[in-house]
Amino acid sequence: MIKVGIVGAAGYSSAELIKLLLSHPEVEITKLFGHSTVGSRIDETHPSLRNMISLEIEKFLPDSLNGLDTIFVALPSGQAFEAVSAAYEKGVKVIDIGGDFRLKNKNEYEKYYKHEHTAVNLLNEVVYGLSEWNKNEIAHAKIVSNPGCYPTSILLALIPLMKNKMIDESFISIVSYSGTSGAGKSLTQNMLFSEVNESVRAYKVGNHQHIPEIKLYLEKFSGQNSNFSFVPHLLPVTRGIYTTIHAKAKNGINEQKIKETYSSYYQNEPFIRLIKPSIPEMKDVLHTNFCDMSFILNENNTLVAFSTIDNLVKGAAGQAIQNMNIMFGLPQVTGLLQCKMKQL
Amino acid sequence: MIKVGIVGAAGYSSAELIKLLLSHPEVEITKLFGHSTVGSRIDETHPSLRNMISLEIEKFLPDSLNGLDTIFVALPSGQAFEAVSAAYEKGVKVIDIGGDFRLKNKNEYEKYYKHEHTAVNLLNEVVYGLSEWNKNEIAHAKIVSNPGCYPTSILLALIPLMKNKMIDESFISIVSYSGTSGAGKSLTQNMLFSEVNESVRAYKVGNHQHIPEIKLYLEKFSGQNSNFSFVPHLLPVTRGIYTTIHAKAKNGINEQKIKETYSSYYQNEPFIRLIKPSIPEMKDVLHTNFCDMSFILNENNTLVAFSTIDNLVKGAAGQAIQNMNIMFGLPQVTGLLQCKMKQL
Amino acid sequence: MIKVGIVGAAGYSSAELIKLLLSHPEVEITKLFGHSTVGSRIDETHPSLRNMISLEIEKFLPDSLNGLDTIFVALPSGQAFEAVSAAYEKGVKVIDIGGDFRLKNKNEYEKYYKHEHTAVNLLNEVVYGLSEWNKNEIAHAKIVSNPGCYPTSILLALIPLMKNKMIDESFISIVSYSGTSGAGKSLTQNMLFSEVNESVRAYKVGNHQHIPEIKLYLEKFSGQNSNFSFVPHLLPVTRGIYTTIHAKAKNGINEQKIKETYSSYYQNEPFIRLIKPSIPEMKDVLHTNFCDMSFILNENNTLVAFSTIDNLVKGAAGQAIQNMNIMFGLPQVTGLLQCKMKQL
Amino acid sequence: MIKVGIVGAAGYSSAELIKLLLSHPEVEITKLFGHSTVGSRIDETHPSLRNMISLEIEKFLPDSLNGLDTIFVALPSGQAFEAVSAAYEKGVKVIDIGGDFRLKNKNEYEKYYKHEHTAVNLLNEVVYGLSEWNKNEIAHAKIVSNPGCYPTSILLALIPLMKNKMIDESFISIVSYSGTSGAGKSLTQNMLFSEVNESVRAYKVGNHQHIPEIKLYLEKFSGQNSNFSFVPHLLPVTRGIYTTIHAKAKNGINEQKIKETYSSYYQNEPFIRLIKPSIPEMKDVLHTNFCDMSFILNENNTLVAFSTIDNLVKGAAGQAIQNMNIMFGLPQVTGLLQCKMKQL
Repeated sequence: MIKVGIVGAAGYSSAELIKLLLSHPEVEITKLFGHSTVGSRIDETHPSLRNMISLEIEKFLPDSLNGLDTIFVALPSGQAFEAVSAAYEKGVKVIDIGGDFRLKNKNEYEKYYKHEHTAVNLLNEVVYGLSEWNKNEIAHAKIVSNPGCYPTSILLALIPLMKNKMIDESFISIVSYSGTSGAGKSLTQNMLFSEVNESVRAYKVGNHQHIPEIKLYLEKFSGQNSNFSFVPHLLPVTRGIYTTIHAKAKNGINEQKIKETYSSYYQNEPFIRLIKPSIPEMKDVLHTNFCDMSFILNENNTLVAFSTIDNLVKGAAGQAIQNMNIMFGLPQVTGLLQCKMKQL
Repeated sequence: MIKVGIVGAAGYSSAELIKLLLSHPEVEITKLFGHSTVGSRIDETHPSLRNMISLEIEKFLPDSLNGLDTIFVALPSGQAFEAVSAAYEKGVKVIDIGGDFRLKNKNEYEKYYKHEHTAVNLLNEVVYGLSEWNKNEIAHAKIVSNPGCYPTSILLALIPLMKNKMIDESFISIVSYSGTSGAGKSLTQNMLFSEVNESVRAYKVGNHQHIPEIKLYLEKFSGQNSNFSFVPHLLPVTRGIYTTIHAKAKNGINEQKIKETYSSYYQNEPFIRLIKPSIPEMKDVLHTNFCDMSFILNENNTLVAFSTIDNLVKGAAGQAIQNMNIMFGLPQVTGLLQCKMKQL
Repeated sequence: MIKVGIVGAAGYSSAELIKLLLSHPEVEITKLFGHSTVGSRIDETHPSLRNMISLEIEKFLPDSLNGLDTIFVALPSGQAFEAVSAAYEKGVKVIDIGGDFRLKNKNEYEKYYKHEHTAVNLLNEVVYGLSEWNKNEIAHAKIVSNPGCYPTSILLALIPLMKNKMIDESFISIVSYSGTSGAGKSLTQNMLFSEVNESVRAYKVGNHQHIPEIKLYLEKFSGQNSNFSFVPHLLPVTRGIYTTIHAKAKNGINEQKIKETYSSYYQNEPFIRLIKPSIPEMKDVLHTNFCDMSFILNENNTLVAFSTIDNLVKGAAGQAIQNMNIMFGLPQVTGLLQCKMKQL
Repeated sequence: MIKVGIVGAAGYSSAELIKLLLSHPEVEITKLFGHSTVGSRIDETHPSLRNMISLEIEKFLPDSLNGLDTIFVALPSGQAFEAVSAAYEKGVKVIDIGGDFRLKNKNEYEKYYKHEHTAVNLLNEVVYGLSEWNKNEIAHAKIVSNPGCYPTSILLALIPLMKNKMIDESFISIVSYSGTSGAGKSLTQNMLFSEVNESVRAYKVGNHQHIPEIKLYLEKFSGQNSNFSFVPHLLPVTRGIYTTIHAKAKNGINEQKIKETYSSYYQNEPFIRLIKPSIPEMKDVLHTNFCDMSFILNENNTLVAFSTIDNLVKGAAGQAIQNMNIMFGLPQVTGLLQCKMKQL
């Protein structure tokens, strides 16, 4: 059994993580860490967990790591440095679900995240946890930085197209819409029900912290330079991300070639569902680790690619477990797709 | 492995049932039956099941039952008679998720369901599947009639109070609100998104088909006569039922006694969560087989009891599996609460 | 032209009030008062008002009242004393949309509202603004206390039944559900979109501040003692209140008599729509000053009465304008139902 | 008073139209026409209209037009030919809210709308009712074809940019999301609440009937050729359209020039709100005839333009009334923005 600790147990991602880990056959949730919730039981903070788990939430101290095999860190940005550093020193594997270790450049981090980065020394040790594209590195990583929710949906759709030089990389438009759980539990007026319901709005246009993350890993995994615009929107749904990408297809590209390209990377990936000629619907992936993808090539050679995920699962807790499975030599679907193993 | 067939595989309850059964360690989904969907694959009808199961949907014929250990029947009312009768004759255990076998009186059935009942001969064989209250009968049943979603939420809250004579049975007010998935996929204008969203409405006041079901089993399990009014409402949510019950507490009843009464029946029941002094929130039970319950005794001796369930799980597919577990001698939580077994 | 000031211009009720007053033919919005928004323009606080009104928000000072004919006060509880007192002293008519002047008993106010009441001397001057039941007093009032949203929906349905002794007053169950705008813009975690969406919850059971208000005015206008239980619920909608009332009908009461009773009070009231045999739907009253009402008398003599309003209109800003119309000798529908005057 | 008839009175657009016309000071709703609802009263079909209007719905016959000054036609596509032709012959002005007269090419109409066009002879008489861009033609039109909801939101944002040659017209990406009321009351499974709620989906990618309409009028009003991709999405909201456009800005274009361009066309247009540097929120325009617009020019010279409207008002009934006002020589805001005239 893998002995697991979770740092930042009170957030939405952690509630999802705990539910998923409770049905993971190789995991024992051993310790939960929090701040304002220290001393309470986890099912007091997340009442949906009653009758499932009743561990007490502890204050994180480096010595708390003794006996753990791995920790998941799910903290607001700027708060993960201490726990990640402590675990690294003690040889406890880390999966950081937050954004503190996704970028490689301190200045860029500080520009977009507005915090000082106090663990720059670890950045070389950090492996980006886009499971389908980085399995080998993840398998040997001491620290995995789990991708952001938007980047997951975007990179999975774009990397194959870029890597195989199917689209004009000089102008890519990426429009994404997210449910509210991605914003966590922080109290801001514009996240009140009355403000979000029956509405839609774009936000952080041109300065969202996922922009440099998308650029860094799009270029790393595709081997191509890129020039894109990313516009996130807030939707009146609790969970889910939907991404619609526009790009100009290169000469000679047709639907068949695009399809073959996607298949060549994903046909054996259990969590990527290529559903062409259907178009993804967000509801089909909710509460799962799937990413549903499709595309259409218009007559005027404009390629429209679609992908959708559950931001709390494939965009956070689910992919984190997928990475843990890879790090510990388990089948990547363990605890995430039991059914898969029995009956596909 | 229990070999399972599902009759009426295209509905919302069946989608939920299939997902739950796919992670049930003792079950193999062997056959799926439909009408208009015959010949297609189940993941074409329910795209959320892609990469999980791809069985072809068959037309139901009595001989299709060969080799099956049990069938779940999830059909609109008036359509279950053939399959249930055929299974009974062949000795295949039946769990009927629909309403065709819940009442014991042919006239009452025909008054409320507006169909002729063509399998009256089986009514004596049918056991009502309110798991927490009927385990012994369910364990030996050949046909289990799974409770309605409203009755499940209501009976679980009311039976203990009635059985222990804590409330005035002459006037009980029951107000329930349901998500839209309870209405299934039938096309009626008043189930369009534009009609349901940002609205609430009471419906079928005084003539809902669950009224005689509630009365029959409330009186059976409590041993008391009852006189209640039940008013269902439609909510702008997809899943979930919330019930608020008012009754006059009898003299000498206090909060402590009510609490003890509930505990005496439910403290060892894994799916009933008594959360007093909290008040249930529907979101805490969604996608689970839990029923969250609480109550308040007002100064003027009015008792208000609350219960909430997921209509598709504890109100349909989940309780059906709980009943299957009981019928086949498995722990009732199998496949429904893996976590429970590991770590509570 | 009636020169109007609004105290507390930044809230949801005030946004609604401003929109309604802008199309009121006899009103000029002259001054807007706020706290944290002082110095900004009203359409910066409420962007939906852009191109409609661009008054600057001022700090309230007693001298600001000079030149005004009336003020609407829309402040959180405990904050209205100063403005109401100042206006009273200067002879400026007041319509207080908040709760500070609804109760007549200082201790009761302080028990339910948790604030000291510092304007007790005015309580005798205050007239309760339930328009349909208190027109004469409102017409001559200097201070009108506008009813709460829940009490409006409840009193309109219950007073006729109580006054005509049609129901057993010893046990009345009142279940209401409200949209989130009733909670205003205050930041609490349980009003975040992720907490409210796809859920329902009862709250403040037995201690909601509208309980003594309902009791006081139910008994005042009906002339009967009452004994009820009121349970409010929060719904995942922005606007609207829906109330479902259960009571035992007295002997000899039938549907016809109930219908006649309601008609005798409301048939000439433009904003009360008796829609029997239909059942109210919340969406039909949104963005209007209507209250839709209906009822059903069950076979077991249980009476179920329904009413629904828009909490921001008939439950706040709309009824406030209706009261202003009455106070200034205008037809009560002015600015609220132009159509009515032309074409019914 | 303008005597108005409405053909197709039972749809969502007509309900909105009736509400708006009832408060229009120069209009009398004289006749309502329907199909399946003939003989019933309009407030039976639209219960929200009770106490406001109770006209009986008639069957449309050419002679019904006698005495009318204008008709609004709000019918599903393929059904408007008879009424429009009859009105044209009798000299009754027509505002067609549907799509039957928006395109100028019979083949294109039949390709996208899948109906035969049986009134081709009228196409030369039809004026496109994009109010802000076609006032002179509308003022003298006998038949106005009201723009589609998507085209309205898109054309208002794009025409100024194209006309002033600020963007590369060779690749424009248009992503729009709509509420469900745009789909009307037709019964299809994918419009059920359970299918739309908590989801998003793109649809009709590459073959939506608004594509040729956008192209035709974008080129007509801008004088430029265009090459765009339009992807509509369905949102879980009842009303509203939000459009996010990406294009490459031409060399030398900066934010100031774009702002000036928009202002030059719209600063005196009461219904266009340029809200830069804010970003539109759909809720701010609901139940109004406003279009809120803004834009951002990214560092890499990508221009992102946003616009949002209420699909039932500026996208249908509201713009139709705006056009009627123009046709009858009234101020264009009459009945749509009373406030405007008093107090801006």
